[in-house]
Amino acid sequence: MERRLDQDLERIRHNLLRMGGSVEDMVAKANQALVDRDSALCEEVVRLDNDVDQLELDIDDACLSVLSRMQPIARDLRFLVAVMKINSDLERIGDSAVNIAQSVYQINQQPPLKPYIDLPRMSQLVRKMVRESLDAFVNRDVELAQAVMAGDDAVDDLYKQLFRELSSYMIEDPTTVSRALHLLLLARNLERIADHATNIAEDVIYYVEGKDVRHHSLAQANAGNGEPVSRSAL
Amino acid sequence: MERRLDQDLERIRHNLLRMGGSVEDMVAKANQALVDRDSALCEEVVRLDNDVDQLELDIDDACLSVLSRMQPIARDLRFLVAVMKINSDLERIGDSAVNIAQSVYQINQQPPLKPYIDLPRMSQLVRKMVRESLDAFVNRDVELAQAVMAGDDAVDDLYKQLFRELSSYMIEDPTTVSRALHLLLLARNLERIADHATNIAEDVIYYVEGKDVRHHSLAQANAGNGEPVSRSAL
Repeated sequence: MERRLDQDLERIRHNLLRMGGSVEDMVAKANQALVDRDSALCEEVVRLDNDVDQLELDIDDACLSVLSRMQPIARDLRFLVAVMKINSDLERIGDSAVNIAQSVYQINQQPPLKPYIDLPRMSQLVRKMVRESLDAFVNRDVELAQAVMAGDDAVDDLYKQLFRELSSYMIEDPTTVSRALHLLLLARNLERIADHATNIAEDVIYYVEGKDVRHHSLAQANAGNGEPVSRSAL
Repeated sequence: MERRLDQDLERIRHNLLRMGGSVEDMVAKANQALVDRDSALCEEVVRLDNDVDQLELDIDDACLSVLSRMQPIARDLRFLVAVMKINSDLERIGDSAVNIAQSVYQINQQPPLKPYIDLPRMSQLVRKMVRESLDAFVNRDVELAQAVMAGDDAVDDLYKQLFRELSSYMIEDPTTVSRALHLLLLARNLERIADHATNIAEDVIYYVEGKDVRHHSLAQANAGNGEPVSRSAL
């Protein structure tokens, strides 16, 4: 017979994945709203966020309930702590998706500035990072978690490239300032989502391998970036 | 004789407050670096962030250790969960302070765009929110936590005002684009720090009053803002 604890943990895992699916969907819909200039999709993103907020509270409650009723130790305890951290990152990914939808709504009120190529690519990369960070969690896959962390650099590079490009637009033609600023904020929010996926990947490594590896992985991340803080540098 | 558990919790609380003091100091130094055009202070912010990152790991380890050795319940359990959440927000405040220092460093390479009045005011408001959210935690002061949450609106208003003002600069004079963009990112990071302080205040209410109040407080925050997501709206 399955332990009661295992059933509880399984239900929590299930809800966390449902939440992950929802935020990925939100990011995809926000991107579609930009590409198709379909502002109705923006409202759908905002609606979906209410479900995500409710799931966050439910998952936190379930974790606390298991912690106080069952007093799990070792791997089960680390699982619950990881879930609570991942839960918080997923909720903030939802918030960023809403920010993106709000930017898209503004952008769609004006003529298109240019064909959108880099932003959809960035959105796709970012969604892949979110999905793979959760796959890594479910499958206790440290290698995949490390691949997610490595993917953050590609997103940062795309962001920097967009930043330069949009700055040039603004300098050359002041009538583009408002649109370019909204596109820039959109890109910034995508970049933040990639940071959250990176946080999740770090939590996965901690969950699977324990504390020494987390210290190590943070040191690696810093060394790779050449800066003391890599998560949300400009 | 004091319980061993109480001693452990006291040590964790002490470290969390030390971390809070450090990130507040980082935000203050980043602001001073802007006002005094003193880029050496930017490097100090980056250095301080290493201590903050280490404190985050130490606090998480201490919480996990207490959870697995002592299996606390009820209020002690909620305290530890709140600490882990607050810990994560403080670490990200540190990251935002580093981002600000990086923006200031860029800004200080160019002639000043205008006298800085709103940004120092915003920085001061934000630091007050961070300090008071931690005071609310230590003193289990729900009213103060609610005041912190209310303060977020003032910061959002200042951000929106700066956004409009800096957009106008860019439209009227393209030579200001680069500086204005860095100032805008700086303001955006201040606004994010205020969001983190708001998160901390929400965690305090959850810690003190339990889940029903947290649901309530979230509903209030949404209603007050008139938007489904208030934390990081544009």
